[in-house]
Amino acid sequence: MTAVAFLDYLSVFVFALTGALVASRAQLDLLGFLFIASLTAVGGGTVRDLVLNRETIFWIANPRYIGVASAAALLVFFFAHRLENRRRAIDWFDAGALAVAVPAGVGVALDLGHGPAVVVMMGMMTGAFGGLMRDVVCNEVPLVLRQGELYLSAAFAGAAAALLIRWGVGPTPLALLGCAAVTFLLRAGSMTYG
Amino acid sequence: MTAVAFLDYLSVFVFALTGALVASRAQLDLLGFLFIASLTAVGGGTVRDLVLNRETIFWIANPRYIGVASAAALLVFFFAHRLENRRRAIDWFDAGALAVAVPAGVGVALDLGHGPAVVVMMGMMTGAFGGLMRDVVCNEVPLVLRQGELYLSAAFAGAAAALLIRWGVGPTPLALLGCAAVTFLLRAGSMTYG
Amino acid sequence: MTAVAFLDYLSVFVFALTGALVASRAQLDLLGFLFIASLTAVGGGTVRDLVLNRETIFWIANPRYIGVASAAALLVFFFAHRLENRRRAIDWFDAGALAVAVPAGVGVALDLGHGPAVVVMMGMMTGAFGGLMRDVVCNEVPLVLRQGELYLSAAFAGAAAALLIRWGVGPTPLALLGCAAVTFLLRAGSMTYG
Repeated sequence: MTAVAFLDYLSVFVFALTGALVASRAQLDLLGFLFIASLTAVGGGTVRDLVLNRETIFWIANPRYIGVASAAALLVFFFAHRLENRRRAIDWFDAGALAVAVPAGVGVALDLGHGPAVVVMMGMMTGAFGGLMRDVVCNEVPLVLRQGELYLSAAFAGAAAALLIRWGVGPTPLALLGCAAVTFLLRAGSMTYG
Repeated sequence: MTAVAFLDYLSVFVFALTGALVASRAQLDLLGFLFIASLTAVGGGTVRDLVLNRETIFWIANPRYIGVASAAALLVFFFAHRLENRRRAIDWFDAGALAVAVPAGVGVALDLGHGPAVVVMMGMMTGAFGGLMRDVVCNEVPLVLRQGELYLSAAFAGAAAALLIRWGVGPTPLALLGCAAVTFLLRAGSMTYG
Repeated sequence: MTAVAFLDYLSVFVFALTGALVASRAQLDLLGFLFIASLTAVGGGTVRDLVLNRETIFWIANPRYIGVASAAALLVFFFAHRLENRRRAIDWFDAGALAVAVPAGVGVALDLGHGPAVVVMMGMMTGAFGGLMRDVVCNEVPLVLRQGELYLSAAFAGAAAALLIRWGVGPTPLALLGCAAVTFLLRAGSMTYG
């Protein structure tokens, strides 16, 4: 499994958790959980693949991603009532998912040989679009745009970190790791101290 | 005309009716009717064709679909005031359109040789995305997600029925017919007895 | 630079101004300005290029568009507080952007040899989708659909004017110029006298 494929799996699973938690807040039924979980999980990567004109969308090429998103949706469907604070859980899972989705977008754009502007855009879009669709469809204030959250700033800083590491001595896997770390630390910091 | 093309025509016409009725509730002008009707009518199939990377989007390949959607919009523009209950009419037309759009998505995915997970996803997306865009843009609570409606469940059951018929003895046209019947009966049942 | 490329640059810059002004109303941070400005600026053209299945999305082929959108976002970020009436500024900039985006959509569809229905659809979609995404994501009432604005009517009339000029004696650049003029005059007229 390549580094990008692993990041895609992980972000699909964790974004699906957040989608299912939002579905739980909206009191949807089982298929509503599966739908919103899948939309959130594959939305960002789908936009990335469409815009970059990749041969096949990642989850069409490998439908196991749908299985992963469905498993996350079922998990939340049966156990969400045990969570005391779903909003808080959504925010933390989302931070984790963002920290894997941004490097997943950066990695694909680097693989295809794109320049820095496109790499940064792909990192931000892959990170932000799944959650944006989730919140727009479920009529929540988009987390991506909520004030004082440094959401897009964390994604931008992560993507920029990846470029800096690559321009220095770093190989791509190290750049993606640095991207994930910077994104998560900034996002988690704004949630803890913001 | 292939079975899938016929289903596309029918779902374009009936989804356009629902879009125009929502435009009528929102008191838009004539071009607003045409715009929302077209968005609703071709939205689901466009997302399907983009995600499956078909050579040409169905309504670009055959612009008659735009004519069909426009005819539906004009019909509603001139006669909607005669309807006593537009919300009720929207729901029933939408149920009919869903029951043709789901098999239209399933049929394209089967034609391209995709596996069951992608087939089910395409059925649900083709059925749900047009109405979702209509409601998000017009700021209605998305019908797709409204509680107690079994909307996505009906789409899922229809797509699953198509797969079961194909795995049994059935040829594709029969599978698509079964898909339409299961989708409509479940959706209509939840509207009548829900 | 071709006529269509010039129109794309101009509409990217002016739509980005409107996106950044909406971000300013929503009190977003710097990255929020950049994100909404970019979404508004390239949204319509991206949908156009996806639907027409162009080899490469215009801003992937030429990332300078992202620089142009970012410059507009920074300009608004530092100077928006000097504007007395941001809503009014948004509407006027948006009218200007619409008047270049519609011919940009029409021009691409004509270049690819599409018929009148697709040409008109592409003009309207390229003009309307960026602003629609901006308003939906920022939870504003979509300007595209606001009553008494003749927004979509202006886009439609502009696209139709382009077709009429081409069917007459006119070469394509003249048709695009006529499209821009008709779109702007109708939209500005509805804002002034509406």
